[in-house]
Amino acid sequence: MSRKITETTPKQDGFRMPGEFETHKGCWMVWPERTDNWRLGGKPAQQAFVAVAEAIANFEELTMCVSQRQFQAAREELSDRIRVVEMSNDDSWMRDVGPTFVVNDEGEVRGIDWRFNAWGGLVDGLYFPWDKDDLVAKKVCEIEGKDYYSLEEFILEGGSIHSDGDGTAIVTEACLLHESRNPQLDKAGIENTLKEYLGVEKVLWLPHGIYLDETNEHVDNIVHYCAPGVLVLGWTDDESDPQYPYSKAAFDYLSTETDAKGRKLEIHKIHIPNEVLITKEESEGVDSVDGTLPREEGDRQAASYANFYIANDAVILPLFDDEEYDNKAIETLEKVFPDREIVGIYAREIILGGGNIHCITQQQPLGK
Amino acid sequence: MSRKITETTPKQDGFRMPGEFETHKGCWMVWPERTDNWRLGGKPAQQAFVAVAEAIANFEELTMCVSQRQFQAAREELSDRIRVVEMSNDDSWMRDVGPTFVVNDEGEVRGIDWRFNAWGGLVDGLYFPWDKDDLVAKKVCEIEGKDYYSLEEFILEGGSIHSDGDGTAIVTEACLLHESRNPQLDKAGIENTLKEYLGVEKVLWLPHGIYLDETNEHVDNIVHYCAPGVLVLGWTDDESDPQYPYSKAAFDYLSTETDAKGRKLEIHKIHIPNEVLITKEESEGVDSVDGTLPREEGDRQAASYANFYIANDAVILPLFDDEEYDNKAIETLEKVFPDREIVGIYAREIILGGGNIHCITQQQPLGK
Repeated sequence: MSRKITETTPKQDGFRMPGEFETHKGCWMVWPERTDNWRLGGKPAQQAFVAVAEAIANFEELTMCVSQRQFQAAREELSDRIRVVEMSNDDSWMRDVGPTFVVNDEGEVRGIDWRFNAWGGLVDGLYFPWDKDDLVAKKVCEIEGKDYYSLEEFILEGGSIHSDGDGTAIVTEACLLHESRNPQLDKAGIENTLKEYLGVEKVLWLPHGIYLDETNEHVDNIVHYCAPGVLVLGWTDDESDPQYPYSKAAFDYLSTETDAKGRKLEIHKIHIPNEVLITKEESEGVDSVDGTLPREEGDRQAASYANFYIANDAVILPLFDDEEYDNKAIETLEKVFPDREIVGIYAREIILGGGNIHCITQQQPLGK
Repeated sequence: MSRKITETTPKQDGFRMPGEFETHKGCWMVWPERTDNWRLGGKPAQQAFVAVAEAIANFEELTMCVSQRQFQAAREELSDRIRVVEMSNDDSWMRDVGPTFVVNDEGEVRGIDWRFNAWGGLVDGLYFPWDKDDLVAKKVCEIEGKDYYSLEEFILEGGSIHSDGDGTAIVTEACLLHESRNPQLDKAGIENTLKEYLGVEKVLWLPHGIYLDETNEHVDNIVHYCAPGVLVLGWTDDESDPQYPYSKAAFDYLSTETDAKGRKLEIHKIHIPNEVLITKEESEGVDSVDGTLPREEGDRQAASYANFYIANDAVILPLFDDEEYDNKAIETLEKVFPDREIVGIYAREIILGGGNIHCITQQQPLGK
C-alpha cells in the first residue's frame, strides 16, 4: 500500500513539509539500546525516552519502534496507549532516520526517504554500519501505508532542516555543505533539492549550529520555527564561549533576512544551559567500540533548549537541572506558545547520547 | 493503543470468532526463510508465498511480515499494494502464530494471543527455539492498535481450530488432546477454554486429521467451514490408504452430529491428491539442523485441498499438479462457493515445508 516515488518531487506534485506546529496525527520514536552510546546498557536513557514518550502521548498518538531484542522490555516499560512496533535500528534518532512527511492541499500525507549515513559516513560518521537506520523511513511509511519519495543519492537527516510550512526552510552551512554529506552537489544544487522536496521557495542558511554538535551542527539544535516568521534561537551572553560567535552570526543573519513571504523574522533568544560535561562515572558506563564516537570524561555536550518537540497543544522541552537557565527557557516558551502547555523533561541522559528531544522524535502530520 | 486483557474472556465480553467466510479487513502472512525447512535458501517457497500473497491482494489487503534480514528482498518481490512490515520470526506459519481475531456485535475487533510452542515444545515440537514466533500475535495487534486477550498458559495454534461464527467450533482430538499441548487440562477443561475464547457453545471433536500431518493433525488440513452448517472434508476412496480410517471416522462423526444451532451438517468430500513425496533433489536442498524436523527423500507430505484460504469474494486453493484430483477440488469448491472466485495456486513448495495456504495466512475480520 506504499508506493515508492522516484520520478517526481513533492513540489512537482503539490506537496510541502508542514511546520511542526501544524496538527499532528502522531509521533514516532526509536527505543535506545546501543551500549557503546548509552551508558549502563541503555537503562537510564530508556527511562528518559519513556518520560518523553509518555509526555507526548498525553497530547497525540505515539509509536515506539523497538528491536526484537528489546521488544518485550520496552513494551513493559511503556503504557498501553503507546503503540510498540518492531523495527531494527542502529541507534535511536528518529528525527534523523525517520521519514520527513509532506502534505498537499487535499490533506494527503506522503513520506520522504532521504539517504542516511550516520552523520557523515566514512568521512566522520558516528558509528558503522548504519544500514538498519537507513531502512527506518521506508518501514514507517510501510506501516502507515503512505507513499514515499525515495532519493537514491541525497544524504540528509531530518534534524538538519526546519520548515515553516509556508515557503521557507532553514538549515546550517556547517552541516549541509559538509564534505561528508553531498559533496557531489554545490550549494545551489543542495538548495534546489531542498526546495523540490520540502516544497519551499526560500532556504535560510545559518553558518553554524551549536558548538561541538557531533551532527556537524544540525539546525534543530540552535533554532526552532514556532510559527511562520517566528523563531527561537539558542543564545549565550558569554562572549568568551565558543558558542557566542555561532549564535551571534545566526542572530545577525536572521535579523536582516526575510522569509519567502517577505516577512521580517521575530527572534526569541533562549540562553543555552551552563556547560554539560560528561562525568567519569557516566563515561565509564559506555562500552568502547572501534568506529563509534567515544564518550570521554569532561566532554562538553551540545546542550540547547531549542531542541524541543512541538506536540499538539504542547511543547516538550529538555531541562538540565540548571538553576540559572531552565526556568528562563520555560518562561520564554510560555510567551512564544501562549496556547500550548510547556512540559519540561529532565533530559541529561538524552544529551549524553548526543542529541535531545527533537532529535529522538518525528511528527506525522494529520492530513485528512 | 493495544490493551492486554487477562481478567476476562471474549465470551464474557460478548466477543466471538467469526467464520473465515465473513468479511475481512485483510490478511496477514510471514515471509519464509529458514533454510532448515525451506529448500534452496527459501527461494522457491518465497515465490510460492508471493503467488499466494498476490492472489489474496486481488481481493483484500495483505500485510507480509518479514525479518530484517529478508526485508529488502521481500519488498522487491512483492507488489506495492502489499504492505511489508518488519517482524522477527522462527518460521512462516501465520495461521498458527498470529492472533485469532474475535468481534462483538458493535463490530469491535480484538485479538487472542495464545501461547505457541512450535507444535509440541520439548515433547515433539518441530524446531527450537520458538520465542520469536510466540511474539507475533502480540506484534500484529500492536501494529493494528487492537486490544488482545492474553493466555499465560494455554497452548494453541490457529490451524487447530475452525469456527462457524455461529456458536460452533471444530477441532481434532489428535492435536488438542496431545500431551505436548495442554496436559494440565482434561478434555472438558480444553473444551471450556475454547468456548470461552472463541465465544462458542459447542465444540465438535474429530478424532484425527490428515495422516502424517506434523502438527499432530490440525483440523484445518482435513475440514473447512464454508458457511454455518456447511463443511468440506478431505477424503480418500482408497481403503488401503492410512488416511481412509481418519477421513471415514470424521465423516461418520459429522454425519450424526448437529451444531450449536441444532443444524445437521452438510458435508462435501474433497479427495486428497495422489501421494506427494519429497524427492532426493528437494531433500538435498534443505539444511540439516539438530532439533528441526528433517525433510527426507520419500517422506509423504500431508497434502490436502481442504487447506485453502477464504478471502473476500474468493477462495485461494492449493494445487499439486495432480491430473486426477486438482480439477475435482476446483469443481467441488465452485459448487460450495457459487459467489466466490476459485483461485488455484501451485503449492508444492509450501507443502514441502509442512503446511499449506491456510497455514500461512490469517484473516483479520473487518469489524466496523
